[in-house]
Amino acid sequence: MKETTNLVRRRLLASTGGALAWAGLGGVAGADTLVTPTAAPKGATKPLPGYANWKDAQSVIVHSANTIETKRTAFGSSGITALDKLFVRNNVSPPSEDIVKDPDSWKLEVTGVAKPRSFTVADLKTLGLAAVPMVLQCSGNGRGYFPHKPSGTQWTVGAAGCVVFTGVPVSAVIEAVGGMADGMLYMTSTGGEEIPAGLDPNTIKVERSVPLSAIKDAILAWEVNGETLPLAHGGPLRIIVPGYTGVNSVKYIKHLAFTKEQSPASIQQNSYRFSPVGTKGTPAHDSIWEMPPKSWINLPSDPDQAVKAGKVQITGIAMGGMDAAKTVEVSLNGGKDWQAAKLVGPDLGKYAWREFVLSAELKPGTYQLASRTTNALGQSQPEERLENNRGYINNSWRDHMVTVKVV
Amino acid sequence: MKETTNLVRRRLLASTGGALAWAGLGGVAGADTLVTPTAAPKGATKPLPGYANWKDAQSVIVHSANTIETKRTAFGSSGITALDKLFVRNNVSPPSEDIVKDPDSWKLEVTGVAKPRSFTVADLKTLGLAAVPMVLQCSGNGRGYFPHKPSGTQWTVGAAGCVVFTGVPVSAVIEAVGGMADGMLYMTSTGGEEIPAGLDPNTIKVERSVPLSAIKDAILAWEVNGETLPLAHGGPLRIIVPGYTGVNSVKYIKHLAFTKEQSPASIQQNSYRFSPVGTKGTPAHDSIWEMPPKSWINLPSDPDQAVKAGKVQITGIAMGGMDAAKTVEVSLNGGKDWQAAKLVGPDLGKYAWREFVLSAELKPGTYQLASRTTNALGQSQPEERLENNRGYINNSWRDHMVTVKVV
Repeated sequence: MKETTNLVRRRLLASTGGALAWAGLGGVAGADTLVTPTAAPKGATKPLPGYANWKDAQSVIVHSANTIETKRTAFGSSGITALDKLFVRNNVSPPSEDIVKDPDSWKLEVTGVAKPRSFTVADLKTLGLAAVPMVLQCSGNGRGYFPHKPSGTQWTVGAAGCVVFTGVPVSAVIEAVGGMADGMLYMTSTGGEEIPAGLDPNTIKVERSVPLSAIKDAILAWEVNGETLPLAHGGPLRIIVPGYTGVNSVKYIKHLAFTKEQSPASIQQNSYRFSPVGTKGTPAHDSIWEMPPKSWINLPSDPDQAVKAGKVQITGIAMGGMDAAKTVEVSLNGGKDWQAAKLVGPDLGKYAWREFVLSAELKPGTYQLASRTTNALGQSQPEERLENNRGYINNSWRDHMVTVKVV
Repeated sequence: MKETTNLVRRRLLASTGGALAWAGLGGVAGADTLVTPTAAPKGATKPLPGYANWKDAQSVIVHSANTIETKRTAFGSSGITALDKLFVRNNVSPPSEDIVKDPDSWKLEVTGVAKPRSFTVADLKTLGLAAVPMVLQCSGNGRGYFPHKPSGTQWTVGAAGCVVFTGVPVSAVIEAVGGMADGMLYMTSTGGEEIPAGLDPNTIKVERSVPLSAIKDAILAWEVNGETLPLAHGGPLRIIVPGYTGVNSVKYIKHLAFTKEQSPASIQQNSYRFSPVGTKGTPAHDSIWEMPPKSWINLPSDPDQAVKAGKVQITGIAMGGMDAAKTVEVSLNGGKDWQAAKLVGPDLGKYAWREFVLSAELKPGTYQLASRTTNALGQSQPEERLENNRGYINNSWRDHMVTVKVV
């Protein structure tokens, strides 16, 4: 038996039907409804949506057409996350697959600069080249551990991956347009999703502002892990803001603006704000931007699969957030005692995660395995989560602990 | 339209028909015939074989069922080569796809040690963990540039890639069996290919010996780029010898032996020897083991596609062989003048390759683009190839030059 279709061709053949698929998103009742698909029941998995049908169905949990999580046991141990296992999270349904058929012709408008203009991706490719290994992580990764059950997808660990994005440095683009205009304070990126007629665009559009300090390492990417950037991950062009949560790396970017104010879009003003439980986010609350240090154990982690007694390699990943993960400790007894784990595999730089391993001799029994990391800035992963209304940025080591049985 | 098959499932479904597919290999007339499928005409491409039907057909040149090359323009610029573009080269046809259905049960025999025993892959996973980014390169990559037309596949640059292999350090396995037996001088790996009845196994079997110095960084790998190791790349288990040419990283390894002598197999005794043109290899000639420094330009490199005048990013890869590529120079005029290129993207360690870029302002005209690299040991890529009978290890910068037209 032979199959001649390949990944690239299958991506092109895949189709979401072109227009936005609003069905199943609970109607249009304000940004939070749109931004947050109903969470799937724990453990449930649905069919892969067309635009992501090339994902490895056995390695992911499909919460909804716009939220696909990597299984904790499926990350592998290479430091790099394979694309067919990488999570997907769209704030609104993606545009038609048509936009990635001729990626070099995709247009980006650049404003808030000395000489505003538009660039095709082909133009951008002449300006420079950078490849950035980095953790891509949804702001709500770990939301499933919050006891107040915040609305939104109940991610555990799998709304994250470590990949290499390749494109042009934003700094090279700014240089090509004669520099930023005076007095600008934010880099504001607008996604290429279609806005249905009759709706206030600000309630729907995916437009995020980040502070200018984020420009230094930001790139406009057309490639991920050596592949042309697929629609599911923001192709043909995505702004990549290393160290920041995923929402800030806007997909199918059509407009890059340097602005005096943050975007008026609801996704900037109200969503992705660090507000107290029960309180809706407002601009007075911190925006969800930079990521903190975090780690978790991937193997063993399956509560339904007993581990054979004897020598066991306990492995996981550690990320440092805005600087590299420097040390990792592992506990076998729920955080009472800790041992230094060994960092292994490639050191992909400060925005990447690092594989760690603790070699342990385990006798039969039940173990509570936990990990905690400290980054190069001296910031440590805390025991407890920081409570917040929407369940963002959970890096509690206690929440990420796993119980395994050794026989 | 939806497709639910995924990469992993497609790999399992793919089938080569189980037994060895000898057809098309020109009969059984000695090792060189078997080892060397007939070269495809330049530029020709055949259908992907079943065991590799998940490769991206548009990114590769299929020379034969056992020799698949990455197109020069398809490498991407991420530092890591995507698996669906990675080259394939089998010395004999691969075993049945059945062997990767339950990879953890694959058995490896270990001998030439204090306590010889066999391990399943599941056993090996308890012993340790290492992830090694490295260049995998066929010994004959660049053979197509030799003027005497050596027999074998006429590879240009695409029998190479940079990937991350993950597995257990060989040193941890040796420790688990009480150390190596006394007086051993080689690590000898045997592949799991079936040997047809009635043939002298030494004329066919894929069994390679490397010096003990190679053990330090060698691993037994079950994963590549975060994916379970597919059959096409040696799954369920492959010995990985970083810095050495691909043939030394034996696929579907079933026997790891520490030996006093090199393997009696023809692939060790006669093939992969650095013999003068016209002279068949013998043990008196150097074995093809360590790789030398090498670089080439990937983009622009298509002679049929003119480049737009103006700013151009000239990009390629540089590998250092046994230590990291440290500097790269690029020439626009066939090696008369050279400029320093910039290394970009992830530094994946000494066995990996590195992306480089030279930003140039090109006026209309014809350019001969060349690159040359020097590694951390001070070894430089030479202008000329070292002539040898079978066309191994070509790292001449002149041979890898490309001519491009700028309009």
